[in-house]
Amino acid sequence: MGLYVGSTVINTADVERAIAFWTAALGYIVRSSDATFAVLTDPARRWSNVSLQLSEEPKRGLNRLHLDLYATDREAEVARLEALGATRVPWEYKEGHDHIVMADFDGNEFCVIQSPYTQG
Amino acid sequence: MGLYVGSTVINTADVERAIAFWTAALGYIVRSSDATFAVLTDPARRWSNVSLQLSEEPKRGLNRLHLDLYATDREAEVARLEALGATRVPWEYKEGHDHIVMADFDGNEFCVIQSPYTQG
Repeated sequence: MGLYVGSTVINTADVERAIAFWTAALGYIVRSSDATFAVLTDPARRWSNVSLQLSEEPKRGLNRLHLDLYATDREAEVARLEALGATRVPWEYKEGHDHIVMADFDGNEFCVIQSPYTQG
Repeated sequence: MGLYVGSTVINTADVERAIAFWTAALGYIVRSSDATFAVLTDPARRWSNVSLQLSEEPKRGLNRLHLDLYATDREAEVARLEALGATRVPWEYKEGHDHIVMADFDGNEFCVIQSPYTQG
């Protein structure tokens, strides 16, 4: 296949701050960056990139795309992400849910999922 | 790192139709699906998953997250995606741009990028 999921691009009001958050959250490194766009990549090159794009558009409602971050220890990762500045989004969870809804400082929602699939 | 980019979740008004489009677009296979949520995965397990989530929320403005699909032959992939039902989004491109802005049938924008990085 000559086409692949290269990156998920996240709009942000502050590229530098978003770089700091997302590199720490994911253990990614900066592949390229300027004032308006950055590409972060997995140093192990196992997963798709995350890119950050400057945008002054206000957020309206829930995002129509979001990242599902798979965690080997969900509660530990949620706590770690909170320490990095992410917040828990108030949410009406159904019983037996496997995800926690969080948001970065831009308000972009993402979920932390107890790893549903083995890696590899 | 016990946390990784498991999936990018795309809201859709029609999960079945979105499965058909995105599996064909990416060469992904269905890992799990029900009426409201599906997980598509790379059979080579190289890239992050794409998930599809039923949503009746209307789209408002440009999405704040979007996929960048990296292509080894951008024009060929754009033509292939158009044949699958994607459309080109009218866009004011800057000179020397490396991307084409498209949208799936839900109107969710994505970009096709002439592969900026080698795989591996």
